[in-house]
Amino acid sequence: MGRGSEVRIAVLGGDGFIGWPTSLHLSDRGHDVTIVDNLSRRWIDTELGVQSLTPMDSIQERRRVWRAVGGREIGFERIDVASEYERFRAWLDDFRPDAVVHLAQQRAAPYSMKTDTHKNYTVANNVNGTESLLAALVALGQDAHVVHMGTMGVYGYSDIGAPIPEGYLKVAVPLGAGRSAEQEILYPANPGSVYHLTKCLDQLLFQFYAKNDGLRITDLHQGVVWGTHTDQTRRHEQLINRFDYDGDYGTVLNRFLIQAAIGHPLTVHGTGGQTRAFIHIQDSVRCIELALAHPPGTGERTRIFNQMTETHRVRDLAELVAKLTGATIDHVPNPRNEAAENDLEVCNDQLLALGLKPTTLEDGLLEELVDVARRYAHRIDRSRIPCTSAWTRERAAELDRANGDGAP
Amino acid sequence: MGRGSEVRIAVLGGDGFIGWPTSLHLSDRGHDVTIVDNLSRRWIDTELGVQSLTPMDSIQERRRVWRAVGGREIGFERIDVASEYERFRAWLDDFRPDAVVHLAQQRAAPYSMKTDTHKNYTVANNVNGTESLLAALVALGQDAHVVHMGTMGVYGYSDIGAPIPEGYLKVAVPLGAGRSAEQEILYPANPGSVYHLTKCLDQLLFQFYAKNDGLRITDLHQGVVWGTHTDQTRRHEQLINRFDYDGDYGTVLNRFLIQAAIGHPLTVHGTGGQTRAFIHIQDSVRCIELALAHPPGTGERTRIFNQMTETHRVRDLAELVAKLTGATIDHVPNPRNEAAENDLEVCNDQLLALGLKPTTLEDGLLEELVDVARRYAHRIDRSRIPCTSAWTRERAAELDRANGDGAP
Repeated sequence: MGRGSEVRIAVLGGDGFIGWPTSLHLSDRGHDVTIVDNLSRRWIDTELGVQSLTPMDSIQERRRVWRAVGGREIGFERIDVASEYERFRAWLDDFRPDAVVHLAQQRAAPYSMKTDTHKNYTVANNVNGTESLLAALVALGQDAHVVHMGTMGVYGYSDIGAPIPEGYLKVAVPLGAGRSAEQEILYPANPGSVYHLTKCLDQLLFQFYAKNDGLRITDLHQGVVWGTHTDQTRRHEQLINRFDYDGDYGTVLNRFLIQAAIGHPLTVHGTGGQTRAFIHIQDSVRCIELALAHPPGTGERTRIFNQMTETHRVRDLAELVAKLTGATIDHVPNPRNEAAENDLEVCNDQLLALGLKPTTLEDGLLEELVDVARRYAHRIDRSRIPCTSAWTRERAAELDRANGDGAP
Repeated sequence: MGRGSEVRIAVLGGDGFIGWPTSLHLSDRGHDVTIVDNLSRRWIDTELGVQSLTPMDSIQERRRVWRAVGGREIGFERIDVASEYERFRAWLDDFRPDAVVHLAQQRAAPYSMKTDTHKNYTVANNVNGTESLLAALVALGQDAHVVHMGTMGVYGYSDIGAPIPEGYLKVAVPLGAGRSAEQEILYPANPGSVYHLTKCLDQLLFQFYAKNDGLRITDLHQGVVWGTHTDQTRRHEQLINRFDYDGDYGTVLNRFLIQAAIGHPLTVHGTGGQTRAFIHIQDSVRCIELALAHPPGTGERTRIFNQMTETHRVRDLAELVAKLTGATIDHVPNPRNEAAENDLEVCNDQLLALGLKPTTLEDGLLEELVDVARRYAHRIDRSRIPCTSAWTRERAAELDRANGDGAP
């Protein structure tokens, strides 16, 4: 799939944080893009009583503006991939995509841990959606390349004493009598939340459908995405991407940026010793393009790329933001059930070899602070910044005490 | 949980092939058993136009007879665990089980591969059911021990050159510079059908909920179950267990028994070189009892037992049945996408150590032939014996040709 060639790409979840700039990017490259989305992310904003910091237009308005600014049509189908199978298959049968970018999943770990019904929803939505897509491609005899957004979180954050490889791990299985057999296996799953768990389940679905039916799949194990603007979203204020800063969907860096913009101390969970992998949204959409251009062959196993460009400890991030802005730092209880400190070294050679040129936090953070956090600071609802979803009863009790809601 | 102590046990899927004799067995041991079942297995009989060889009563009638014969009440709730979450949680909150036997899953590999909608149904039903159960226990703060029926098929049937361990595999991860780290991981999943895939997904759900919430879970990786009668089902003809011989739900041994009973050649798929693990239904219910009596501690990882007692090559099984009955043997195309020949050596030390005394095929097969296959031979519908679900398009074409339905 060369640049500028007209190929049909379905972007499932194309109205979301990654999906919208991906759809613009691929459309701008000359591809025939159609978004399939049930708009659930907008419904969840309503459920949580929060909104994007950036004023975000309807999908219809976004598409109208892109038609005017970008000169190209992006299609849109409001279909729930997880629960409206017959409609989805009929649409696929008609559209016959060359590639499918699969982003139609609930993607916030804290949201997935809020209550039992949020856990169930995340599992049902994410797993049934992936299954529906794969089963439909097989039933229709379509050979579309599936590019799926996974997460670095499938690996867990336990230190194995070596850099985390890209999806597969070489191990030696002891057979007794001093013999052993070398095998390359899917990296053992160690998810830290129900959301991360669903991405581990996806991996097994991909493994099966690649083996049994020869489906061609690429799974992108992505780090924490930061940044708001891409080359396309910058071209009109109504094309702007969403920026989440609430306790469920806002990532750690967005929380720091917002807190800095309103003069609030930066709240670090626990010691801030958790190390995470990061990538800028511009690099994220570029990686999806690179993945689309390099599908695995039929009969090959799922191709897995680690889609991240740098790692940082949370407390180092806080210090970076504090240095830029003069903000102070506060330590608060960690809602997650995880080790207080972890190292993280990650292989990302494959996407770099395909031509990815990383945007670093050091270079891009100031722009994000000025162009997004400070520019829209008047829209910040301070009450929605703290994370209130806890991983376990014990963590919930700690949070309650810290937030002053505990029983006396 | 000692024998005869009154503990409350929920048997999810308690109307099914394993569920019904399990419910009788546990009730007979003095436990307070309630069956939760949506009766989907009966609906699937209707969908497929097949029925159990043995005349099987309604769940209401079965319970009435057991009350008279066994002198004990077995409760019944018609709830779909996968899709009626609120009802299920409310019932759990009321019943407060000490243990939950989780059998509420679609359990036939060929059925799971029939069409895209059967694949989707199997994934949604099996995964969402497990997730609902685990999320409800956490939300309600219930510490019930969950005993789940898994399958030997999670391991796949590739030969690793050593006996298959019980759920976990010790591996050495090379770290470079000649160093390596020993780890014990979940045995790498290698499912051969969508049905088997769902049991691999279950394993990851169990791993997460044990780690994050301290749920106590035992996963039984069961072989092919054969046999019909248990000590309790024998006590009245209306307590009889189901016996499936159709192409979807009938296992290989049942197919051979039925074919022998009606003087049809035994149909071996491919070379018959596939080796499978087997266990008698009486041993299966006994293993569930043993598992219930030996829960893992809080905070321990999921306990995994290989629930099988012997392995046989399919062609050796055919020869065993042929020897007993004088039947001839026919080779037909294999609908499954699998290796033609495999070895299989399996560890099952844990259940043997807990006291399991195996019933062997050599000892029990004749009874099964006489008391079940021949006794109910007049109820056999010959047209429903061949397997018509194929794993891939290529396998489907082979089956069509063999069945004489291919285009000229």
